[in-house]
Amino acid sequence: MNITVIGCGRWGSFIAWYLDRLNHTITLYGHENSSKLQAFLEQGTNGMVTLGEGILLTSDLEKAVAFAEILVISIGAQGFRGLMRELAAMDLGGKTIVLCMKGLEADTGKRLTQIAQEYAPKVPSAIWVGPGHVQNFVRGIPNCMVIDSVSMEIKEYLVKAFSSDLIRFYYGTDLIGNEVGAAAKNVIGIAGGMLDGLNRTALKGALMSRGTREIARLIQAMGGNEITAYGLSHLGDYEATVFSEYSHNRKFGELFVKGKDYGELAEGVATTTALLKLGQEYNVELPICRAVYSVIHEGREPKTVLSDLFLRSLKMEF
Amino acid sequence: MNITVIGCGRWGSFIAWYLDRLNHTITLYGHENSSKLQAFLEQGTNGMVTLGEGILLTSDLEKAVAFAEILVISIGAQGFRGLMRELAAMDLGGKTIVLCMKGLEADTGKRLTQIAQEYAPKVPSAIWVGPGHVQNFVRGIPNCMVIDSVSMEIKEYLVKAFSSDLIRFYYGTDLIGNEVGAAAKNVIGIAGGMLDGLNRTALKGALMSRGTREIARLIQAMGGNEITAYGLSHLGDYEATVFSEYSHNRKFGELFVKGKDYGELAEGVATTTALLKLGQEYNVELPICRAVYSVIHEGREPKTVLSDLFLRSLKMEF
Repeated sequence: MNITVIGCGRWGSFIAWYLDRLNHTITLYGHENSSKLQAFLEQGTNGMVTLGEGILLTSDLEKAVAFAEILVISIGAQGFRGLMRELAAMDLGGKTIVLCMKGLEADTGKRLTQIAQEYAPKVPSAIWVGPGHVQNFVRGIPNCMVIDSVSMEIKEYLVKAFSSDLIRFYYGTDLIGNEVGAAAKNVIGIAGGMLDGLNRTALKGALMSRGTREIARLIQAMGGNEITAYGLSHLGDYEATVFSEYSHNRKFGELFVKGKDYGELAEGVATTTALLKLGQEYNVELPICRAVYSVIHEGREPKTVLSDLFLRSLKMEF
Repeated sequence: MNITVIGCGRWGSFIAWYLDRLNHTITLYGHENSSKLQAFLEQGTNGMVTLGEGILLTSDLEKAVAFAEILVISIGAQGFRGLMRELAAMDLGGKTIVLCMKGLEADTGKRLTQIAQEYAPKVPSAIWVGPGHVQNFVRGIPNCMVIDSVSMEIKEYLVKAFSSDLIRFYYGTDLIGNEVGAAAKNVIGIAGGMLDGLNRTALKGALMSRGTREIARLIQAMGGNEITAYGLSHLGDYEATVFSEYSHNRKFGELFVKGKDYGELAEGVATTTALLKLGQEYNVELPICRAVYSVIHEGREPKTVLSDLFLRSLKMEF
C-alpha cells in the first residue's frame, strides 16, 4: 500500500519507520525548512528512529499526497487547519486521512476530524490514538492502540493495514470520546508533571481518579460515551503521559513549576485552552484543566492551586 | 478520644503515630510474639515510624480494647476472622470498628465488614481506604483517603476525628465498591509488577484501563456502583500500588516473574483467590485476576499470559 506520512517529528518519523517495516511503500513529508527533515536527509536518523532506505523523503507536499492512498498526518494540532487548507486544493479522491496526533484547536475547541471535514468533506478520516512511546516501540516493546472513525469500513481497512506484533489495534467505537480523550490526556500529563515538580507525586492517584471523571463528563456532554475516558485513548495513555520519563507534557509541567524553561509549549497547553472553551460551551466544570490553565496563564501559585484541587474540602467522593 | 490500633505493622504503627499527632490518646496493640511490637518496645521505631512517647504499647488485647472508643484494625486480612472471634468475646458496647486494611477472605470471598458483622452485629464498622504511602506521610507529603460505612453518622464521626492537613478524607458512598475496589487494587498492583519485571511497563496503561473495567463490572454485579472502581479506593490507589517503588504487591509481582523470592506472599495473592471466587459467584469474567492467578498458582509462563491479555485479538475496545 502506498502511504504518505505528513510530519517528520518524533511520531511521524516513527510511523514511517513502522509502516515501512510492514512492507508498505512510504513517503515521509517534512516542510522544506524543517531541521528534522534535514537531519533525516543527511543522516537517515533523528537519533531515535533510523529510517529504512526504501522510505522516500520529500518536502514536496503535492507529490507526497499524489503518491499515496493513505495520508497519515502527525503535526502540531495548531498547524492542522493550515495544512488542511493546502490539502483541500489537491486531488484527494480515493484517499483516506489518518490523524496520528493528539490535540484540539485552541481558538475554537474543534476536534481535528471536524477540521478535516470542513476542508475535505468527501474524504474519509480516522484517528490513531492510544498509549505507546516511540522510544519503547523502536526497542521492540509492544503496545495496544486504537483506530476510530465514523466508518466501520474505514476502521477495518486501517486496522488490517496497520496491525502487527508490535502494535495491536482495537476498534474504537466513539470518535468524539476518543478524540477528546486523547487530546485531554496531555493536560492531565501536565498536571502530573506539576505534582512531580512539587514533590506531590503521591497525589497522582487522586489526579487519575478526578482527571478521568472530569473528562468523562465533558465527553458525555459533547455527545460521546463517558466510558471512553476510561479506555486506551485517555486513561490507557496515562502510563505514557502522566508517569513516563519520555512524556513531553509531564516534563513540561514539572519544569514549569520549577521555574525552568522547557524550550517550547507542550501540546497540552493549547489543549487546555480548547478544553476550557468546550467546558463553557457544554456547561461542564473542568477543575483540573482550570487549575493547569491558571498556573500557566494567570501566574497562580502551583502548590496552592494543586493542593486546593485535592486537599481542600470535606465532601462526598461522588 | 481514646483510640486503640490493633496491628503494629507498617500501616498500624503509622496510624498510631498519625492519630497521636491529632491529640488522640492512643494504645497500639501487637501480638506478644510480634517482633514488630518488640522493636517498638525496645527502640520506639521500626525505622520508618518513630512513635510519640504518649502512645501505650501493649500485647494485652483485652486491655487495649477496653481502653478505646474506636478500634482501628490493621492486620493481614486472612487473620481477621480469628481476631474477630477474640473480639466477640469482649464488651464492645459503644465502640466503633475501623478497618484500615485491604483484602478479602480468600476461602469465602467475603468482605471484611461482613466478617465483622458476623461476630459483632451490633458494633458499627467502617473502612479507611485510598492512596498514600507511610513513607510519604511521615515526610509530610499529604494525600486524600476515603472513609466509608453504611452509616452516615459513623462516617461523620470518623472523618471529624481523623482529618488533618496531612490526610484529607472523603465520604465514601458505596461500601461494597470501596471494599472490593481497595482489595482488588493489590491484584492490579501484582500484575503491574509482573509487567515491570517483564520489561513491559508500557502496558501499564492498558492494565489500568482494563483493570478498572474488570473490577467495575464485579462491583456492579455485587450490588455496588461501578463508578467506585474509578474512585480513590481503586484507580486512585494505582499510583501507590501499580507504580510506586514502595508497593509491596507491585514488588512481589516483579520479583515473582524474575524467579526471585519476595520472602512472603503479598496480600494481593489471597485477594486474587477471593476475587475469582466472587467472579464465579456473580458470573463476571475477570481476565486480569485469572492471569495473575494462573502465573502464581498454575505455573503459566508470565510473558505469554500477560501478552495474551493485552495483545492478542483484533476487537472492539468496548
